[in-house]
Amino acid sequence: MERVAVIGSSMTQFGQRDGWILDLLAEAGLDCLDDAGVDAADVDHLYVSNMASGEFEGQTGIMNALAQDIDATPAYTQRIDQTSSSGGAGIYAAWQSVASGASDMTLLVGGEKMTHRTTGEATDVIASLTHPVEYKQGVTLPSFAGLTARHYLERFDAPRESLAKVAVKNHANGVHNPHAQFQKEVDLETVLESPIVADPLRLYDFCPITDGSAALMCCPESVAQEYTDEYVVISGIDGATDTHVVHEREDPTIMGGVVESGDGAYEMSGRDPGDIDVAELHDMFTILEFLQMEGLGFAEHGEAWKLVEEGETERDGELPINTSGGLKSKGHPLGASGVAQGVEIYEQLMGEAGDRQVEAEVGLCCNVGGFGNCVITTIMEAAQ
Amino acid sequence: MERVAVIGSSMTQFGQRDGWILDLLAEAGLDCLDDAGVDAADVDHLYVSNMASGEFEGQTGIMNALAQDIDATPAYTQRIDQTSSSGGAGIYAAWQSVASGASDMTLLVGGEKMTHRTTGEATDVIASLTHPVEYKQGVTLPSFAGLTARHYLERFDAPRESLAKVAVKNHANGVHNPHAQFQKEVDLETVLESPIVADPLRLYDFCPITDGSAALMCCPESVAQEYTDEYVVISGIDGATDTHVVHEREDPTIMGGVVESGDGAYEMSGRDPGDIDVAELHDMFTILEFLQMEGLGFAEHGEAWKLVEEGETERDGELPINTSGGLKSKGHPLGASGVAQGVEIYEQLMGEAGDRQVEAEVGLCCNVGGFGNCVITTIMEAAQ
Repeated sequence: MERVAVIGSSMTQFGQRDGWILDLLAEAGLDCLDDAGVDAADVDHLYVSNMASGEFEGQTGIMNALAQDIDATPAYTQRIDQTSSSGGAGIYAAWQSVASGASDMTLLVGGEKMTHRTTGEATDVIASLTHPVEYKQGVTLPSFAGLTARHYLERFDAPRESLAKVAVKNHANGVHNPHAQFQKEVDLETVLESPIVADPLRLYDFCPITDGSAALMCCPESVAQEYTDEYVVISGIDGATDTHVVHEREDPTIMGGVVESGDGAYEMSGRDPGDIDVAELHDMFTILEFLQMEGLGFAEHGEAWKLVEEGETERDGELPINTSGGLKSKGHPLGASGVAQGVEIYEQLMGEAGDRQVEAEVGLCCNVGGFGNCVITTIMEAAQ
Repeated sequence: MERVAVIGSSMTQFGQRDGWILDLLAEAGLDCLDDAGVDAADVDHLYVSNMASGEFEGQTGIMNALAQDIDATPAYTQRIDQTSSSGGAGIYAAWQSVASGASDMTLLVGGEKMTHRTTGEATDVIASLTHPVEYKQGVTLPSFAGLTARHYLERFDAPRESLAKVAVKNHANGVHNPHAQFQKEVDLETVLESPIVADPLRLYDFCPITDGSAALMCCPESVAQEYTDEYVVISGIDGATDTHVVHEREDPTIMGGVVESGDGAYEMSGRDPGDIDVAELHDMFTILEFLQMEGLGFAEHGEAWKLVEEGETERDGELPINTSGGLKSKGHPLGASGVAQGVEIYEQLMGEAGDRQVEAEVGLCCNVGGFGNCVITTIMEAAQ
């Protein structure tokens, strides 16, 4: 079977944006067409990753509106929802559309518009993705993060500072990402003295609420070569669920969806953790970066914090993680986030990452839905 | 490339149901596993077609909850939204998952829970799928249907009764569908004297608001043969958008998405309209059955009404249409409807349609999103 290539990318400014979801999607979609040098008329499938435009803005059917707005009609459209991993699910859907032969050119646009709602309203919408046995008792995702972080720190004798260092690192990277919501460094003290949200986690352990959109252009490798000599291939991709009732998991420090999807992506690509040069992990909460590093085999169970303490995941370390700034500093517009992870890895592999550039031939993104309720892992490689 | 087979189906009772969306999805999902003889542990991908559980019930993440409820974890999950054609989009997504090699067993479950909301509230959610330039002016889908019906009748000199006969036919079929919301015949007079909704269309020209769920099990043909000697293959499938702003269409009686997706499905399957033995069309409004008959090549432009007048689309006619009762009498739980179309065609091709059984080797379903804003056409065949 022919490999699936990525030949273009784009992302809007992330942050608090005017306009509404359709403006953001159209901006990223048009920029991606331009970046890839593809005419809208040549798009076969137009996929939109978005969790909740109906809940956030009272507007549905946004994938059909987008087709008209960017002049891609009669392209086939679909909206992909996999909660906070809708973007990763979109990459998987785009991959399937091309690999199945259904589409020779799939434009994937992820986006979410959230900041016009209060933090409470946005948290309510997000909390509705958890199992009602938890959600109706008032357990939100930040609560899970606090409980898990406390357990991890005590069980593995990890210092609280190691979590804070994830935030410090990702903010340091975000400074060099012109599309990031926060382009400013924070120091350890600022993180450790920020307001408590879910003990032991504080405000700076959490990603913000964000508006934004990001896009990728996917096609068969043979078609890619008609457009460009340099491109990226998706060499491995898989997705997996874990128990939807989070408190039923045997070990709260192991995210089964990360392990399963990672194993699938490694097997498909013939790669192993040691082959990965750069990774984008889903740092919605700092503790999640540890759990993904361990689930994906970058660190032994209970030891990810040591790599962070040693600086191994900084931009000049052995395995740079979240060179984009991560969700923490780049922002987390739900449906856009997984696509934006793919954009960062694409740009790193293409040598287009500007001041964030690292040496990389193989990259990985891991997009976490809910509290690991469904996870998608994607491995991309610079085409030879 | 190996063909994609369907090896099992199910649908719940359609109508006004107790419980909520997760109950309906689990009921159809478990029944489909049972019908196919597949263990939940062997499901690779679990896809859920649903337009708006967040808007209707304040619950999202239903695909992940379903994985746990039917014991399919760690199956990969995704929610597919293509408005009122989410079910057809789900069939396309399931087809892509299998044809791409990503999944050897995909369970597709479509469902919607709507009747706990008032008709006004439900209509508001549905209207949010249209372009805001129309929706914010108060144009709902029934308005478009009325305008289009008036234009069609006058332009093609068709009798008002021909539209009513679609409703009469589909109700007559629904009598024999034990899962249909309405299992009762209606006569021409009842339709023609029912309350006006959008002139010239009256109450009985419209489908009801419905709760329900339906499911299909898809896998590669080689895997199907491990489970059964008799199965169905998806020989053609395609989807296409038309202008999202409905009033910008050149001819309101031609649905571009029907024509484009039909052409694609015919080309892929090597079939033509004359090969189709039975069809499920999206009769959300009676006029839509005419437009799809013409767009799919079953009748010349402006002449579908003649076939209906001649009884050619009744169960004993040349081309039986909506043997299930159609959306009109079976009901229209948005995300379930396209899947239920597939269930009817599957059962007809397998000889499992009971009192509704017709002679059929090749069947077609056409699922319409919005007012033809995106359309998916699927051709299925009894495996040789």
